[in-house]
Amino acid sequence: MTTLQLTEQILKKKSFLCIGLDVDLDKIPQHLLKDEDPIFAFNKAIIDTTHHLCVAYKPNIAFYEAYGIKGWKALQKTINYINENHPEIFTIADAKRGDIGNTSKMYAKAFFEDLNFDSITVAPYMGKDSVEPFLSFQGKHTILLTLTSNPGALDFQVQKIDQKAFYQQVLEISKTWSNSGNLMYVVGATQAESLSEIREIVPDSFLLIPGVGAQGGNLEDVWKYGKNSNVGLLVNSSRGIIYASSDENFAQAAKLKAKELQQQMEEMLKT
Amino acid sequence: MTTLQLTEQILKKKSFLCIGLDVDLDKIPQHLLKDEDPIFAFNKAIIDTTHHLCVAYKPNIAFYEAYGIKGWKALQKTINYINENHPEIFTIADAKRGDIGNTSKMYAKAFFEDLNFDSITVAPYMGKDSVEPFLSFQGKHTILLTLTSNPGALDFQVQKIDQKAFYQQVLEISKTWSNSGNLMYVVGATQAESLSEIREIVPDSFLLIPGVGAQGGNLEDVWKYGKNSNVGLLVNSSRGIIYASSDENFAQAAKLKAKELQQQMEEMLKT
Repeated sequence: MTTLQLTEQILKKKSFLCIGLDVDLDKIPQHLLKDEDPIFAFNKAIIDTTHHLCVAYKPNIAFYEAYGIKGWKALQKTINYINENHPEIFTIADAKRGDIGNTSKMYAKAFFEDLNFDSITVAPYMGKDSVEPFLSFQGKHTILLTLTSNPGALDFQVQKIDQKAFYQQVLEISKTWSNSGNLMYVVGATQAESLSEIREIVPDSFLLIPGVGAQGGNLEDVWKYGKNSNVGLLVNSSRGIIYASSDENFAQAAKLKAKELQQQMEEMLKT
Repeated sequence: MTTLQLTEQILKKKSFLCIGLDVDLDKIPQHLLKDEDPIFAFNKAIIDTTHHLCVAYKPNIAFYEAYGIKGWKALQKTINYINENHPEIFTIADAKRGDIGNTSKMYAKAFFEDLNFDSITVAPYMGKDSVEPFLSFQGKHTILLTLTSNPGALDFQVQKIDQKAFYQQVLEISKTWSNSGNLMYVVGATQAESLSEIREIVPDSFLLIPGVGAQGGNLEDVWKYGKNSNVGLLVNSSRGIIYASSDENFAQAAKLKAKELQQQMEEMLKT
């Protein structure tokens, strides 16, 4: 999917919502545990009730790996289900990978080819040759960790190098890499005040914004400081939507929570 | 396994060699492709001929994930085979993970509990709360990316913050985290000249040193600048050993390459 197509979907659905599919068997409704594949059953129900309200789904790969082969099968079924039934939806493997060149190439192959995700999140610490293997896939997107939503972001990401925060260096240097047009950036919603500075460095790129909801980020600030002329935002909510209820009506409860966010976004998109 | 036990194994086997199990189906001997599980068949043959020459095995998780469920099964069989037949060997999941707290906890559970690895490699970019969930597992070790062996290490890791290289900040800040005694550090063999400075900051920690062999690092320099009073080194070789031959005698060829390195290490350990 191209970023142009993504913007079209946003305008059509009046939503820039991404739903995080972070399935924890301790948190899903207990009746699903009788299912042969509870993780997929949960995801399918969420997707069926929310696909018209969001433009992206983001499975967090850790939650699948934690269940070994069973989890990996559920991930495969989930991405196939989205691709087959809702090919217009942008898919994000939230994997935060990054390794030396030949290894990053293996990860890119796993997520872009075998699983057929549209994008993957990648950590910048190992630099250019750890990210470029992902960027070389045409029609796929690499979402670089930039300024994250967790408290530990303060440990390294905001430290100053030559008057600039480290995360700003990450943005600037990443623009020099081959196929940098395939880059997007992760910026936590809890860091909304930094979005203006980020927009000066990467005015045209899409930003993936986690941290609205459970982590305390504010959607209005994200919109105010983060949007660009093509919208350029994907705002993610995970726990706030998928765990809205632990009863049998969980998928309807998730729909209502997604609808709330979609309606706020619809108002913003009018301006 | 404790670091004391690891040092005992090093002195007993006269080796601080770690063998990287980075299995690429395009590179393994063709006759193995007929096997029901070629990845495990390859690993088993390598383990059977080299286990007395090394103290650690390091499967690079990307190479398994690239083959989906088949790869994940092969990884599970490989770690189980090592743990059952050679419980004295230190195992490293080279996964380079790192995410917000609740997600890092899921990764820690996957690699430390379900797969029962002794250790995992973790990226520092997201800071304290992304690493501490790994550190909280007693008897397990978290190996933090510090100064890597690839060219992209120059992009961010050596940039100066307050007169100090960024990787030195990573070392110093990581020492303040809870259970920091469970930390080890990745330092590429191609960065041997920085090992003296690293030893000033973390005199007692184990260092995992990739990059000897295919990537051009020098074992003598690593020993000279990197060792401490408990040896404190695990030197990894992957491609140089496991792909020494692509014939049917590949496992014997791997043994000879491992033996070469082990003998150099034996000489060093005498000094």
